[in-house]
Amino acid sequence: MTAVTVLGQGPMGRALTAALLDAGYRTTVWNRTEANAREMLARGAIWAPSPAEAVAAGGVTLINVVDHDVVDAVLETAGRALAGATVIGLSSDTPDRARQTAELVDGLGGRYLDGAIMTPTDTIGTPDARILLAGPQAVYDTYHPVLDALGTSTWLGEDPGRAAAFDMSLLDLFWTAVSGFEHALMMAAANGIAPRELLPHALGIVDILAPVFIEIAERIEEDRHDDASAPVSSTAASVRHLVNASRDAGVDAGALEAFSGYVDAAVAAGHGADEISRITAEMVQPAAGSPTRKFRWQHV
Amino acid sequence: MTAVTVLGQGPMGRALTAALLDAGYRTTVWNRTEANAREMLARGAIWAPSPAEAVAAGGVTLINVVDHDVVDAVLETAGRALAGATVIGLSSDTPDRARQTAELVDGLGGRYLDGAIMTPTDTIGTPDARILLAGPQAVYDTYHPVLDALGTSTWLGEDPGRAAAFDMSLLDLFWTAVSGFEHALMMAAANGIAPRELLPHALGIVDILAPVFIEIAERIEEDRHDDASAPVSSTAASVRHLVNASRDAGVDAGALEAFSGYVDAAVAAGHGADEISRITAEMVQPAAGSPTRKFRWQHV
Repeated sequence: MTAVTVLGQGPMGRALTAALLDAGYRTTVWNRTEANAREMLARGAIWAPSPAEAVAAGGVTLINVVDHDVVDAVLETAGRALAGATVIGLSSDTPDRARQTAELVDGLGGRYLDGAIMTPTDTIGTPDARILLAGPQAVYDTYHPVLDALGTSTWLGEDPGRAAAFDMSLLDLFWTAVSGFEHALMMAAANGIAPRELLPHALGIVDILAPVFIEIAERIEEDRHDDASAPVSSTAASVRHLVNASRDAGVDAGALEAFSGYVDAAVAAGHGADEISRITAEMVQPAAGSPTRKFRWQHV
Repeated sequence: MTAVTVLGQGPMGRALTAALLDAGYRTTVWNRTEANAREMLARGAIWAPSPAEAVAAGGVTLINVVDHDVVDAVLETAGRALAGATVIGLSSDTPDRARQTAELVDGLGGRYLDGAIMTPTDTIGTPDARILLAGPQAVYDTYHPVLDALGTSTWLGEDPGRAAAFDMSLLDLFWTAVSGFEHALMMAAANGIAPRELLPHALGIVDILAPVFIEIAERIEEDRHDDASAPVSSTAASVRHLVNASRDAGVDAGALEAFSGYVDAAVAAGHGADEISRITAEMVQPAAGSPTRKFRWQHV
């Protein structure tokens, strides 16, 4: 079994360390303040007084800190210790910042795999934890057993920005859905409906999202929006009702207004009879000098 | 078996009619233009040349038209035929408009139950169709068998505005979640990720929504936001990242900006260490002359 180092002993860093210790890995830890590490030291982790000594102690180094500015600062401190070392970044940031960290580690003679942890700390060490990884496949294959001790991992491709790109898109969906639920609770409350009364019906809405998402993803990928079951024009009327009702109730309608704007723009562009999948074009600002803008994607 | 009338023969009106015919009900229909009704007449429905004659033919009248302005116009045309009649409204509109229709029917000597159909036309006539009803419980109990022929129905209380209030809140959640998914697809596309690549991970996010919603609803109902697993302050940083990444990618960030605004306001109000359930207070505009505003709800 390889030795493992964990840089960063915040709540997630401690959860990663605990899972590694439980799986029997010799685990070295470092943190800016030693106090945060005490719980894991008591459980058998080994303290390293500097990032360089921590990296030198492990066959692979995991790093979980607040963002990639801190990741890069810590790794620069480790400096020459990174020559020949492998680093797996598990901090959250943008795809560009992940790519910059990959370049930094490459420049210091190391190998870098970027990861995004998609589930809460209390899932770590169980198959419920989901971790997305991107970067050299050889690195992923080598350290797969270490990642298996943490949760269920998925490799997304060689581009070290891909895990962060998936992470960002999924957080976008998660927070927008949470925001929509909290807004729905306030719309209900304004009408005398308690949160726990709306809840079972809201869970019924969650149940119907999967088939709707599957259809929307297929239509957008195929750029085929005819044969509408939820035409843009009828949605436009329904969402205008919602915006007005929200304002009348004294509840800010920001998210609905944004959606209503895309829907109205799609109607104005002559797409009223199309499926609601059509509106994504209205979310995307045209590139400079171009009347329209379309994204291209490539399969891995 | 009671005779049933269906006013309105759009796609949903026809689906209601078909389900009633399949269940063996003698069904009379009326529509502004007779052409829309032909399919159902061929299947055994009886044509009525006016709303008054249609109402007179049925033991109970269902009405499904575009909104309650049209509901009221059609019912006013029926006029004295409504004396002693029962009307079940199945059109979508605001709680206030539903209450106005109830008053109109009451004023004409009839009884009114308001309903909201929560599922697509192709569910009607199966238990998957979900219909919310509000208004006199005696009317609901009497016509429960007719509603059973249409789908699974739930009675929400005597206030005829309650079905519309639930409907509105649930549509709010549905459309905001759909909008968030479409936005996430564009964030992914800007990073070269195809819709079908993101899809399975997005469905993983849908899977974790139910427990999150349950916790948020409980916390808001109890007004208890401490012991945070997702503190407002860490969400604030994460959502700022998302807003910037969305703008950098040329994708409008409207819904995220609204959410970010509530989160930042909660931090500014000193609630950074609290759970994300805390932010609903920031969605609600203070009533005139009051520094804060809280909604009150009452259980049925």
